Amino acid sequence: MKKVVTFGEIIMRISPPGNKKLIQSNQLEYYFGGTEVNVAISLSQLGNGANHVSAVSNDFLGKAATSYLNTYGVDTDFVQTSEDPLGLYFLEVGAVMRPSTISYHRSHSAFSTIKSSDLDWEQILEHCNWFHWTGITPALSEEAYKGLKNALLVAQKKNIPVSADPAYRKNLWNYGIDARAALSELSGLSTIFIGGPNEINELLGTNFTNDTDDFIKSCKYLQEKFPYIEKVFDKTRVSLNANWHKIKSRMWDGNTFHETEELEITHIVDRIGTGDAFASGLIHGLLHYDDQKALQFANASCALKHTIEGDANLVNEEEIVSVIEGNLTGRIKR
Amino acid sequence: MKKVVTFGEIIMRISPPGNKKLIQSNQLEYYFGGTEVNVAISLSQLGNGANHVSAVSNDFLGKAATSYLNTYGVDTDFVQTSEDPLGLYFLEVGAVMRPSTISYHRSHSAFSTIKSSDLDWEQILEHCNWFHWTGITPALSEEAYKGLKNALLVAQKKNIPVSADPAYRKNLWNYGIDARAALSELSGLSTIFIGGPNEINELLGTNFTNDTDDFIKSCKYLQEKFPYIEKVFDKTRVSLNANWHKIKSRMWDGNTFHETEELEITHIVDRIGTGDAFASGLIHGLLHYDDQKALQFANASCALKHTIEGDANLVNEEEIVSVIEGNLTGRIKR
Amino acid sequence: MKKVVTFGEIIMRISPPGNKKLIQSNQLEYYFGGTEVNVAISLSQLGNGANHVSAVSNDFLGKAATSYLNTYGVDTDFVQTSEDPLGLYFLEVGAVMRPSTISYHRSHSAFSTIKSSDLDWEQILEHCNWFHWTGITPALSEEAYKGLKNALLVAQKKNIPVSADPAYRKNLWNYGIDARAALSELSGLSTIFIGGPNEINELLGTNFTNDTDDFIKSCKYLQEKFPYIEKVFDKTRVSLNANWHKIKSRMWDGNTFHETEELEITHIVDRIGTGDAFASGLIHGLLHYDDQKALQFANASCALKHTIEGDANLVNEEEIVSVIEGNLTGRIKR
Amino acid sequence: MKKVVTFGEIIMRISPPGNKKLIQSNQLEYYFGGTEVNVAISLSQLGNGANHVSAVSNDFLGKAATSYLNTYGVDTDFVQTSEDPLGLYFLEVGAVMRPSTISYHRSHSAFSTIKSSDLDWEQILEHCNWFHWTGITPALSEEAYKGLKNALLVAQKKNIPVSADPAYRKNLWNYGIDARAALSELSGLSTIFIGGPNEINELLGTNFTNDTDDFIKSCKYLQEKFPYIEKVFDKTRVSLNANWHKIKSRMWDGNTFHETEELEITHIVDRIGTGDAFASGLIHGLLHYDDQKALQFANASCALKHTIEGDANLVNEEEIVSVIEGNLTGRIKR
Amino acid sequence: MKKVVTFGEIIMRISPPGNKKLIQSNQLEYYFGGTEVNVAISLSQLGNGANHVSAVSNDFLGKAATSYLNTYGVDTDFVQTSEDPLGLYFLEVGAVMRPSTISYHRSHSAFSTIKSSDLDWEQILEHCNWFHWTGITPALSEEAYKGLKNALLVAQKKNIPVSADPAYRKNLWNYGIDARAALSELSGLSTIFIGGPNEINELLGTNFTNDTDDFIKSCKYLQEKFPYIEKVFDKTRVSLNANWHKIKSRMWDGNTFHETEELEITHIVDRIGTGDAFASGLIHGLLHYDDQKALQFANASCALKHTIEGDANLVNEEEIVSVIEGNLTGRIKR
Amino acid sequence: MKKVVTFGEIIMRISPPGNKKLIQSNQLEYYFGGTEVNVAISLSQLGNGANHVSAVSNDFLGKAATSYLNTYGVDTDFVQTSEDPLGLYFLEVGAVMRPSTISYHRSHSAFSTIKSSDLDWEQILEHCNWFHWTGITPALSEEAYKGLKNALLVAQKKNIPVSADPAYRKNLWNYGIDARAALSELSGLSTIFIGGPNEINELLGTNFTNDTDDFIKSCKYLQEKFPYIEKVFDKTRVSLNANWHKIKSRMWDGNTFHETEELEITHIVDRIGTGDAFASGLIHGLLHYDDQKALQFANASCALKHTIEGDANLVNEEEIVSVIEGNLTGRIKR
Repeated sequence: MKKVVTFGEIIMRISPPGNKKLIQSNQLEYYFGGTEVNVAISLSQLGNGANHVSAVSNDFLGKAATSYLNTYGVDTDFVQTSEDPLGLYFLEVGAVMRPSTISYHRSHSAFSTIKSSDLDWEQILEHCNWFHWTGITPALSEEAYKGLKNALLVAQKKNIPVSADPAYRKNLWNYGIDARAALSELSGLSTIFIGGPNEINELLGTNFTNDTDDFIKSCKYLQEKFPYIEKVFDKTRVSLNANWHKIKSRMWDGNTFHETEELEITHIVDRIGTGDAFASGLIHGLLHYDDQKALQFANASCALKHTIEGDANLVNEEEIVSVIEGNLTGRIKR
Repeated sequence: MKKVVTFGEIIMRISPPGNKKLIQSNQLEYYFGGTEVNVAISLSQLGNGANHVSAVSNDFLGKAATSYLNTYGVDTDFVQTSEDPLGLYFLEVGAVMRPSTISYHRSHSAFSTIKSSDLDWEQILEHCNWFHWTGITPALSEEAYKGLKNALLVAQKKNIPVSADPAYRKNLWNYGIDARAALSELSGLSTIFIGGPNEINELLGTNFTNDTDDFIKSCKYLQEKFPYIEKVFDKTRVSLNANWHKIKSRMWDGNTFHETEELEITHIVDRIGTGDAFASGLIHGLLHYDDQKALQFANASCALKHTIEGDANLVNEEEIVSVIEGNLTGRIKR
Repeated sequence: MKKVVTFGEIIMRISPPGNKKLIQSNQLEYYFGGTEVNVAISLSQLGNGANHVSAVSNDFLGKAATSYLNTYGVDTDFVQTSEDPLGLYFLEVGAVMRPSTISYHRSHSAFSTIKSSDLDWEQILEHCNWFHWTGITPALSEEAYKGLKNALLVAQKKNIPVSADPAYRKNLWNYGIDARAALSELSGLSTIFIGGPNEINELLGTNFTNDTDDFIKSCKYLQEKFPYIEKVFDKTRVSLNANWHKIKSRMWDGNTFHETEELEITHIVDRIGTGDAFASGLIHGLLHYDDQKALQFANASCALKHTIEGDANLVNEEEIVSVIEGNLTGRIKR
Repeated sequence: MKKVVTFGEIIMRISPPGNKKLIQSNQLEYYFGGTEVNVAISLSQLGNGANHVSAVSNDFLGKAATSYLNTYGVDTDFVQTSEDPLGLYFLEVGAVMRPSTISYHRSHSAFSTIKSSDLDWEQILEHCNWFHWTGITPALSEEAYKGLKNALLVAQKKNIPVSADPAYRKNLWNYGIDARAALSELSGLSTIFIGGPNEINELLGTNFTNDTDDFIKSCKYLQEKFPYIEKVFDKTRVSLNANWHKIKSRMWDGNTFHETEELEITHIVDRIGTGDAFASGLIHGLLHYDDQKALQFANASCALKHTIEGDANLVNEEEIVSVIEGNLTGRIKR
Repeated sequence: MKKVVTFGEIIMRISPPGNKKLIQSNQLEYYFGGTEVNVAISLSQLGNGANHVSAVSNDFLGKAATSYLNTYGVDTDFVQTSEDPLGLYFLEVGAVMRPSTISYHRSHSAFSTIKSSDLDWEQILEHCNWFHWTGITPALSEEAYKGLKNALLVAQKKNIPVSADPAYRKNLWNYGIDARAALSELSGLSTIFIGGPNEINELLGTNFTNDTDDFIKSCKYLQEKFPYIEKVFDKTRVSLNANWHKIKSRMWDGNTFHETEELEITHIVDRIGTGDAFASGLIHGLLHYDDQKALQFANASCALKHTIEGDANLVNEEEIVSVIEGNLTGRIKR
Repeated sequence: MKKVVTFGEIIMRISPPGNKKLIQSNQLEYYFGGTEVNVAISLSQLGNGANHVSAVSNDFLGKAATSYLNTYGVDTDFVQTSEDPLGLYFLEVGAVMRPSTISYHRSHSAFSTIKSSDLDWEQILEHCNWFHWTGITPALSEEAYKGLKNALLVAQKKNIPVSADPAYRKNLWNYGIDARAALSELSGLSTIFIGGPNEINELLGTNFTNDTDDFIKSCKYLQEKFPYIEKVFDKTRVSLNANWHKIKSRMWDGNTFHETEELEITHIVDRIGTGDAFASGLIHGLLHYDDQKALQFANASCALKHTIEGDANLVNEEEIVSVIEGNLTGRIKR
């Protein structure tokens, strides 16, 4: 069994039912998630070992958070507790042309006050086959950034493949560091880059367009700058509106370009975590298949996540493979 | 802050969850609404003062009804109490080609037994910038009709703009007055007419078709008959089925014709109150913008209401403006 | 009032809310159903007498099951009780390209242990105008098969029309009989065959394609083999995905071919029991209208079922006729 | 099987969850009930035939109301439909020293506008073993009163035992008849009187206290006035608060006095319909047992109803007998 | 109409349903509250004007918070918005001997970052008849403490009565000020002291016991220290367990001692906010009745709050008076 | 960390909400449990390692079952999958004198068809500090009985303490073995006996009463027969009704008798699994404390379980110790 390690905040998502606004109902629903958590949970559902490193509050919320990860098979032995509260966010779910809205309560959270010196990456990354990180973690606090950097250095030393999803969220990054520099440094320590021209432009200040030619050029330029990166995987999304998307994926393996067919999601169930489902599908694919099937697997995983409630993709390998094989009618399995 | 006054029944809407029939669930959900209430609530959400005049039952339902209006910022100082019960209706929600069904419990309701002589419109309409009425109120009882007529006379005296949404609901009008005559009389006391050939045909016994030429002709004819009317605003709806509509709006400002782009709602959340959202968007637009932007604002407000649960549109000005500016993909706002 | 008799398992369906997986919620929702039950309930809702013959557990589940049928007007005087548990299944509802999944708990159920000798079909079928069966019942146990065969023999003797929906479900049929032989024998005792090339191929080992020509050929071949069969009715389904289907129906009345327009269901509410809604619509149509209107009625009934939650179609005759007449916009009925 | 006929309004009860006030939740829960309905449902649950005569609205509420009675085995063949709405009431549930509050919507209801001439009591009371009425029905409208009186005259002619629960509800009785005179007239046509000094004082203007001596005296006086009455059954309630009651029952059989042990309900689940549970227990008891066991059965039925949610007692005979036998610890039955 | 002003945090309470632990359900329920908010809401429900001064987040949570206060009639014109998140807490509800547990998320909240200089108390306290404060507000931040002190100074200048509920919550007070000194200073600016020996001991470092003699002594001592205080009101609670309490109240009016009867709450619905219900009942009593009735009113208000879900007491004046008059059986009001 | 192994069925409990009967609601709630599962979960919550051995269905129910155990920290590495369905039961919850009722669906379940030869107890019991069994497991099937017996033999060989809770459930034991003989054999292989005169009488055919003298005598007699048993622990329960119990515990350590104080649970939240909470409290106590504190811990654990929803006790060590220390008022912990 392959073992993947992730590092990031466990965050609680709270929302009123359906498309209601908060004041319209005294009922709420919650999930635990977080971009790296979502990747860990999905990799566990796909049959891999998953170990999530984090810090949670020392109260019943923190306990519920780790219990939730355990439910989905994620190991939480390296989750610390803190006297600060668990990060959380409230979500009002939009529809059609009305956007969903999020209110974050994650400043001063248990994770953001983590101590990087408490993380023994030599131990944590023992027997580890993959490490995954995203641009959220280094944005949350300097200690989180340091912790992540240490992890990447140890991973490099141990020759562990590292996937980077360095999306830049400008609302975060409030602790006084240059986001672009930090994300560049961390990307340079990674072997797989998840992103395309948009992310590369953000990182390197370039102006690539989103078409295939520029995708290839941007990948080459990225590898020039960060030679440790071996491959680039990117999904593209066409949003008709909040309920109807189309997903297609492409890759640059250092030599050649590949892309998938487009998958259409006409009735989205939950939009959150679909990027993480691409990442988890990709990691699973790269651990078990060749690149091209990995790309298809990531694309189908992303598409299927739109049909799953909550933050993490809970489909299994068989369901993803079935979509790759072209079974798109959703016929009941008895 | 602009202040709008509305007058009409506060009605409770009760329905089983989702698309269930009543007997399929012992659970129900409720909202308070009513066509003029919906307009008042939306205008308050858009930042205007809103004062709704009505009568409710002297029990916990009546108290809940006014509290509900207060929740959404509507002033209820001129809501009377009565020993008769609050009006209500039950709704079974349809889907696709299956219509929703409504059972009304509004005969003998607190509002229908309101006393017109108890309404001091001179006081109520003080500092008022707009008065809005619909064809429901005069249909409910003779006293409601009289109360409304008095309001319009005072509004005219005070030079307050008056919007009329004189839709004719034939199931109502049971108290022995000629509906067409009453609606004509009241429309003649209004400055803004919300409706198009259908409503004008109902009112004036004409046979205009729904195309642009006839829309313009019907507006001219209407203004000939009711010279106090200054402008006509109309939305047109294409219903593919109960879940999928397209909305487009047009106006006649006395001189020129304008129309909006069409907005498509592929996944309707709640169909009720979309006409009221057009009216509230229009009134807000006319109070704050020029005619053409008011029309676009009304059209976008109407479209967005299809994504909101309950009777009243709860979106804010920024959300409507964003749709006018072409942001239709419903991307999450973090 | 026409009276229809059905025979089969009453099965409880249990599912987590919405599109959740079981582990994602501690809440569940249930319905009672079963393919023949669904037909009986719908026929009752359409104004016919319906009498369902079955066996349930001798506990509060069995009592709730028969009470549920009574709610929808189905007579349960010939439902026996047994010390074995009620059959049930769990359903996780999919979306778009993700299939729904079912876990059955129906082996050793109260119905599967029914005693055929306890069923006095002479009495049960008194004053009966129609008998309906499906391929599920004979698949469940030898006694169920025998009971059904006895029913068909008595029906033939009494000249009661018999509709057969002999779909072959390969997961069932575990008691050691040849499914094809049994289904053929039972189809041979029926007057109306519900199915098309797929079902005929399953039954007779043929290879007809699904096009119109082959449909006609397959019907002729079927009647050659089973001359007691008078007519064949078939619906065809195009599944874009789990949420979006198109339904069209066709028939062979022994002499001529007819087909309906296609009905599109863009937002499916509940996919389960749509075949049963075709059957119940067909039976009602054949009992009250001519063949062609019966076909249209069956097609519209099937389409409308996709908008109803639960297993059985709960629409009334007026709603189905309205769809036949082309009212597809789902406009609210006040 | 004994068959009991009841006559009265089917009323819908709607309440927010738990002890919430209406404005505290957008969720509601409903039951159908009505004092005579509750008696009919319980008698059906106890294994008797029950036929409820009423009028309901000609819409989905009326259909749901009769379907609900069918669920619990009550025959609704003599339920008429009307264009007036179904009666309903809203309930806010209190606790400890806080009373529950009710808001009625039953004026002008479908039942109150019933036509007495449409009720063919000769047919309805065929093969009937018992007729039960309460003081609610004649209070609702003159036609309801006349319909009930006709029923009692036919019952007397047919020698059908008649139980009267002539509680006087002063908020009702708004149609201009003398309540005391009407209730006296109807009680005089009954064989079993359910009530004690309170009810007798209300009826006859007497001043009996509630102690045993006065109970006996009041019974004797009642029988003097209404010689057709054979026996009097009365339950006494001690209310510590809204959650904690004690129930004890007594009877006068014309010759002797009997009383039961006291049953204590320390954690009331639902207080509504406990009087009706006494009545249904009594009727079942008198139909199947001797007077003294009937009294115990009524007392235990009343006590057990406090543990059942909704308006009607849903316990079975075995459960009531078990309480009579002294099994009060509520041990789980596996 | 009397007008009361309160000042403090609006805090959101989130809890899993019933007695469940967080991880046991994905459903949550919420209320808005806060000790001073609860007082304001109750005073509004009792018919007084209530104006709550606070700061909330500038997002949909903040908007929902003020809308919630508006629902219950509390004026929020002086509620500021802030870029910090709304304070909230999670509650797991215990039972019998199992305590409820609370996890607070209120550090760095919108209220704790309020600017005292933004509060114009001269304007806020215009036409104000009462000001109420508790020990929570000054514990949250230095600015909150300063804002409160300014309010008390203005109130003193304007001769507005001030009630102090200076309970000391040791988990708060983290910003480096001496809690006892601050609470003493603020108590010295108040006219009504809510508390008894426990609170006085905390404040003044004394060792009074809880018996009547010591209560009187402690009051005298308190008035010696803080001569501006006119009267002392205290409730005493006997907790059998989490579900069963007894409440009794006492006062020292500067000259004489009074106490109430004990009220027993055998089935507690919600324990939170019962102290606030004592305070609001007391303030209403002192504004409208004599001292002794005010004490009884406070005691009954406190007892009744145990029967109300959520943080604030929602009973009306009539319900409290009824309890004072000895109506404790909770009989249904029809 | 101490590690405990348990062996038994994971069973799903499904019930309608509150005190409703199944037919009264289409909503259900579920938990996973099973007597040995409950012990494992509680021991994990108390900080011990817990490993549960079982077999579940090879579908989403089986997956949800093991995920549920993982949520609460129980290791499921030795849980097998089977093609048979997961065992489950339906529960209607009673109140006061109305018993709860259970309908089992556990015949032919995945666990009952477990193969004893597939269980490698040498491996499973490695590093194990305790083994616990109950009388349910051997009652379910011959293979379950054999599997358990093998476990006990290996435990004996490894000197692992074994607690026996050999309650005899007569509805089970349908596979043709003598229950008393089997339970005696298995008890003889255990070191700790959980039970008292009732259980000993069942096992040995004796007639001990439940008083202290006979308790001691029965313990001595038991040890005479089964010398491997070292100590006997027993809880006694006084049930006022289904909502109100008192719990007290006693022990015989081979030499002396001890007993605890009585704990009163006036408002039971959930009665199920309280015996298992006694067992888990006892095992934790014996693993970490002396006998007398273990007894108190078991008693308090049992009492506290009555306040927890679901089958397993979820309180932590601190909460139990607090009750032992006499904190019974359930005061909120902030």
